Amino acid sequence: MFSVTVRDHVMVAHSFRGEVFGPARRLHGATFVVDATFRRAELDADNIVVDIGRATEELAAVLGPLNYRNLDDDPAFAGVNTSTEYLAKVIADRLAERVAAGALGEGARGLAAIAVTLHESHVAWASYERPL
Amino acid sequence: MFSVTVRDHVMVAHSFRGEVFGPARRLHGATFVVDATFRRAELDADNIVVDIGRATEELAAVLGPLNYRNLDDDPAFAGVNTSTEYLAKVIADRLAERVAAGALGEGARGLAAIAVTLHESHVAWASYERPL
Amino acid sequence: MFSVTVRDHVMVAHSFRGEVFGPARRLHGATFVVDATFRRAELDADNIVVDIGRATEELAAVLGPLNYRNLDDDPAFAGVNTSTEYLAKVIADRLAERVAAGALGEGARGLAAIAVTLHESHVAWASYERPL
Amino acid sequence: MFSVTVRDHVMVAHSFRGEVFGPARRLHGATFVVDATFRRAELDADNIVVDIGRATEELAAVLGPLNYRNLDDDPAFAGVNTSTEYLAKVIADRLAERVAAGALGEGARGLAAIAVTLHESHVAWASYERPL
Amino acid sequence: MFSVTVRDHVMVAHSFRGEVFGPARRLHGATFVVDATFRRAELDADNIVVDIGRATEELAAVLGPLNYRNLDDDPAFAGVNTSTEYLAKVIADRLAERVAAGALGEGARGLAAIAVTLHESHVAWASYERPL
Amino acid sequence: MFSVTVRDHVMVAHSFRGEVFGPARRLHGATFVVDATFRRAELDADNIVVDIGRATEELAAVLGPLNYRNLDDDPAFAGVNTSTEYLAKVIADRLAERVAAGALGEGARGLAAIAVTLHESHVAWASYERPL
Repeated sequence: MFSVTVRDHVMVAHSFRGEVFGPARRLHGATFVVDATFRRAELDADNIVVDIGRATEELAAVLGPLNYRNLDDDPAFAGVNTSTEYLAKVIADRLAERVAAGALGEGARGLAAIAVTLHESHVAWASYERPL
Repeated sequence: MFSVTVRDHVMVAHSFRGEVFGPARRLHGATFVVDATFRRAELDADNIVVDIGRATEELAAVLGPLNYRNLDDDPAFAGVNTSTEYLAKVIADRLAERVAAGALGEGARGLAAIAVTLHESHVAWASYERPL
Repeated sequence: MFSVTVRDHVMVAHSFRGEVFGPARRLHGATFVVDATFRRAELDADNIVVDIGRATEELAAVLGPLNYRNLDDDPAFAGVNTSTEYLAKVIADRLAERVAAGALGEGARGLAAIAVTLHESHVAWASYERPL
Repeated sequence: MFSVTVRDHVMVAHSFRGEVFGPARRLHGATFVVDATFRRAELDADNIVVDIGRATEELAAVLGPLNYRNLDDDPAFAGVNTSTEYLAKVIADRLAERVAAGALGEGARGLAAIAVTLHESHVAWASYERPL
Repeated sequence: MFSVTVRDHVMVAHSFRGEVFGPARRLHGATFVVDATFRRAELDADNIVVDIGRATEELAAVLGPLNYRNLDDDPAFAGVNTSTEYLAKVIADRLAERVAAGALGEGARGLAAIAVTLHESHVAWASYERPL
Repeated sequence: MFSVTVRDHVMVAHSFRGEVFGPARRLHGATFVVDATFRRAELDADNIVVDIGRATEELAAVLGPLNYRNLDDDPAFAGVNTSTEYLAKVIADRLAERVAAGALGEGARGLAAIAVTLHESHVAWASYERPL
């Protein structure tokens, strides 16, 4: 199995609801360093998993609407805790939609899975992986 | 599949027995930067894999009895080589016991697996993963 | 010249005022990975610059009131842009006050300078250095 | 499942053929920071996955013929794009041959899989994993 | 003294002349992860050293003509070894020209110095610092 | 001013004397990731600060006698605390001796300073810098 990963980041504000979150129930923020991994069993005709340049562009396109935002104000996240692991799924699912729409090229239709890791600090990160 | 990882470290002395270890048969030491990963198929009611704060505390609790120690003097390791990969298993198993005992909360009973990675330097690390 | 550096982090929300900031004028957030460096010309009687354990505690004590906060609501920052470089100075100055107050021990009075670096992402960071 | 990973690097020149590569069709180069991971279900009699020293030597032996080279001139790569993901496979396969030849010791015959990751920059990397 | 640093990278081919370079006299390549640091004594009216967005754009503009190139073919480098430390100076000098030309804004005219670090691998890097 | 840095590591056991060290008074150990920086005002005739290959070899030669050792048993350290900052000085001074002895080549006699940083974990490191 092959994979290619590209990295970018977003800077957001948000707050959590629930006893478990303690001081994180206050409005605060995070830089999420985001790694998007694309997997496939065999390389395409160009000998790649996916074009790294296009993968980087698509990741940036998915992160754009989240960047420099207060996620508490985003209707897409009404009533949900925008935890690091949940946001990893949001980004993976949105990347999957773009792959399905052909944004990463026809060759990318051979992708088997997408994994997204969000690093919230030098000592904590979360991931979500899904098939395509 | 989702995962959350938290990082901490321990500083230990130890020595190895066996031809393969060469100069590492002498008493020496290591800083192990320890990454503990918790996996589960679905998020809990708070939209998380596990509380990162509690996961960090439990990892610290597991590392405490190892920290600033000569592992050659620890009865738990009598007669075994405390290799990086073996210590990854020790830490993963001890974390699994704490999960089973409820130390990470009731929600953590939904965890599917634990993986532990020990970085012994910038050029070598070892991991162990087990189901829960 | 010797130095010792310890690392911690804070997660904050804030917004900026001024054309130059573009989308960062919206309420957003950041994880700042914070490196605090203590410098001195000669080691103390224990052969150290400063106790790493105490330095870590004092850095945590300085970061505590900033953590999980919206800096726009902090009276200490009324009317100022809490840029990464400005926050580096705030943290360095507060550490300097603690050194002067003896919080890092009598030996720490021999410190010559403090430098603070805040990493706002994997591709941008800012520092401030001052004498003691 | 256990794993051990060792890191090294190579510095190569190459060029690509195909529209998708854009400016990378020109002769350019890369430093690949290479992580080689060895997996096995159970530890050997010495309580290790594989000797880290020998694993490091074998990785260096595999990287040697690639290092400080223009890959466009290497007959082994005639007519193929030496993409990061493809090179990960080349290195994994060559390591697998050495394991099969006994270069990592008799104990290493119990290895279950090899994974190789090539970091081409701080924002992009690729991996290949295969069973043994 | 304050500083702000931004990071980008370039991927180049080149070769060296001189006994000291050994196998690096062959055509090979490198990814240089490039850190550009801007220093000044006091913050500007916006409370910053320099706009991080603009600094990132200017660094990219300076790196563009080097990226995906064989430096041996660049007339600017005819007859010189494009060592990591030399390229750090080239990039610092070109950034200094852009600051002088106003590309980083009027506020950036208060900058005191520029430092550039090029990481050629995970185990080697070089820097050059100059006043403005 | 130019600089070149090379990285290596050592794995040692040791213990400390003095109230300030708390649990670190017990025999424990550390991996020190060691960065050795060489500075000079102008590049040499080959357009370099120092040959990176030779610098790497000399750093390894200096680290060799410390590696896989219990520093408490080393006569060179009798009666002293082998703190991270102290070891940075030991390594810098031994590198300086090798430079003076010509081990880095005649060109290296133009070096202005050496700085050594020892990373004891992902959250703490220490440095020492001296002129040549």
